[in-house]
Amino acid sequence: MKDIHYMRRALSLAARGGLAVRPNPRVGAVLVKSDQVIASAYHSSYGAPHAEAKVLKKAGESARGATLYINLEPCSSYGKTPPCTEAIISSGVRRVVIGCRDRDPLNRDHAEKILKKSGISVETGVLEEESFELNRDFFIWTEKRRPYTTLKLALSLDGKIADRRGRSRWISSLPSRRYVHYLRSLSDAIMVGLNTVIADDPLLTVRMGYRNPGLKRVVLDSRGDAPPTARLFRGRGASNTILAMTSLAPPDKLKKITEGGAACLKVPARKGRVSLKVLFRRLAEQGVMRLLVEGGGETAAAVLEEGLVDEVHLFIAPIIIGGRKSPPAVGGLGVKSVKDAYCLSGMDVNRLGNDIHVFGYIKRG
Amino acid sequence: MKDIHYMRRALSLAARGGLAVRPNPRVGAVLVKSDQVIASAYHSSYGAPHAEAKVLKKAGESARGATLYINLEPCSSYGKTPPCTEAIISSGVRRVVIGCRDRDPLNRDHAEKILKKSGISVETGVLEEESFELNRDFFIWTEKRRPYTTLKLALSLDGKIADRRGRSRWISSLPSRRYVHYLRSLSDAIMVGLNTVIADDPLLTVRMGYRNPGLKRVVLDSRGDAPPTARLFRGRGASNTILAMTSLAPPDKLKKITEGGAACLKVPARKGRVSLKVLFRRLAEQGVMRLLVEGGGETAAAVLEEGLVDEVHLFIAPIIIGGRKSPPAVGGLGVKSVKDAYCLSGMDVNRLGNDIHVFGYIKRG
Repeated sequence: MKDIHYMRRALSLAARGGLAVRPNPRVGAVLVKSDQVIASAYHSSYGAPHAEAKVLKKAGESARGATLYINLEPCSSYGKTPPCTEAIISSGVRRVVIGCRDRDPLNRDHAEKILKKSGISVETGVLEEESFELNRDFFIWTEKRRPYTTLKLALSLDGKIADRRGRSRWISSLPSRRYVHYLRSLSDAIMVGLNTVIADDPLLTVRMGYRNPGLKRVVLDSRGDAPPTARLFRGRGASNTILAMTSLAPPDKLKKITEGGAACLKVPARKGRVSLKVLFRRLAEQGVMRLLVEGGGETAAAVLEEGLVDEVHLFIAPIIIGGRKSPPAVGGLGVKSVKDAYCLSGMDVNRLGNDIHVFGYIKRG
Repeated sequence: MKDIHYMRRALSLAARGGLAVRPNPRVGAVLVKSDQVIASAYHSSYGAPHAEAKVLKKAGESARGATLYINLEPCSSYGKTPPCTEAIISSGVRRVVIGCRDRDPLNRDHAEKILKKSGISVETGVLEEESFELNRDFFIWTEKRRPYTTLKLALSLDGKIADRRGRSRWISSLPSRRYVHYLRSLSDAIMVGLNTVIADDPLLTVRMGYRNPGLKRVVLDSRGDAPPTARLFRGRGASNTILAMTSLAPPDKLKKITEGGAACLKVPARKGRVSLKVLFRRLAEQGVMRLLVEGGGETAAAVLEEGLVDEVHLFIAPIIIGGRKSPPAVGGLGVKSVKDAYCLSGMDVNRLGNDIHVFGYIKRG
């Protein structure tokens, strides 16, 4: 019970790291001796000392014989900072309680062995689920070597994203659109398909009270068919735009598109389209830990089919559009059988203005 | 304030009439003298005395000088019973407070005039909205001469009712399916399209703890293409099945379909399909006050396009099916522009088992 109490404290400290620590995980540390918290700390920004190092430095000699609570297995390798396992061993801490293991093959399970070898008692898995939740994006990024991916769909009650002529603007209400800007502010990159650029000519900036100046914008365009005049390729934001293309795109077209400052990211083609698996790996390598996929229907279908979606936000407007041929929110071929459908777990349903906001994690049925 | 208090009492009495009074409206009556309720009553079943007649009979001579509260304008014409206006006048009641006017052209506004002419003070519109709500189905039926129509859609989050091969069974969870049986128990008839009969061969019975032995089943089949072996045309329920067809259906086909006891209802064709407007009028004439439209996507689109839907129940399963060609919950052509979409008002969103249950009234945007 005491372990849970102090771990909860470590978790709430860890959460304060927020977005500033990316692409590091959020970590909080609490040092306890004789049932008294003698020091606590959290990792506050990328490149800053780790929570464990901070808390041990704060405590100094008094750490000797204490119990250290941390929500994540401590690092055991040299990164921006020396391994925390060394600091723990030299501090004289007697016991270490860990929320959940790291997923990075570089670190996973190493710390426990190293600490135990030094005679420190180690317990892992206290508030394991909560500890996993807090760094879900980090774990996906390190373990799967791809961005943690959020799919956003703004659709009608009957699953349409546009009328029969393909016009889609303003399906969702103001509070939903504001929420999308919040999601953008949490992301390292947004991704859209070529159709969305052609149909909507979006800016994909972060507005409505949110900010994220470093946000990257990825356009899927295997053949370099994007209109060079699109707003994503012109103006101040262009240098944050990445055209994900393949060798099928003619250089002269690419030259025109990138004139305004956009970058090209060449990826192998797969069935004439950008290989999403390779693209996602490249984005992860470039530090994109959180990716927001904003549409349209074919892009949504593609990322789902490749198993690349972690969570989904649906903004369902209280309208029915109908139409056998009106564009659906999720296109592609669709699943073969209802039992193979993509299921939402941990679903949360709320009213958002006039809309229904549905959140869930994706698992294949 | 006192008027509102006694009208609320009349409304809650009226509600007790429930389904038993159909196709009559639900009516409650409260008789008040010197701020004391001296008698109350409600219409309890079709053919039984009206609430006004009952309450006045209960009160007898003491009704003289009292105030009568009724949620609906009293009848002024001869039906199964003599007009209530006569009973009210002869009772000596001094004042009548009415919730809302009748919509039936036969009765509307007549009572007020008749009563006033006899020197009775009349006030109309106390808790008007609540009074309208309670008999919404009755008002649509009498005013528009068609059934009050509920559209039920069981669909995925992305608006699909089947996988890409058209197989649809068990998209929704058990509590949703149970709720559908509840909706069936409230209805006089269910309607489905031919495609649903072919794809699902449904029984359309009322089960799972609900009952409605008189429920009619209407199949839209302009050309008599329904399989005569379908369960709706065989077995005990067949005599409650109505095949809505047109002169395009060959007599020999109809003979086979109706062998098991199903009835034919011949309706003019409109663009090769059953004229829904005429069909709805015929059903209303046959006493169908509440109609439940259960699918599939083309039938849903057709009733929406004809402006025949009053309310909608969506049972949204927490799954994504996808597919440009997977059957959508609402087919047809779809609206021309998002601003013409069918809007839900008075929307209510709840979790129902694993599903999301959305209720709303339909109004054209």
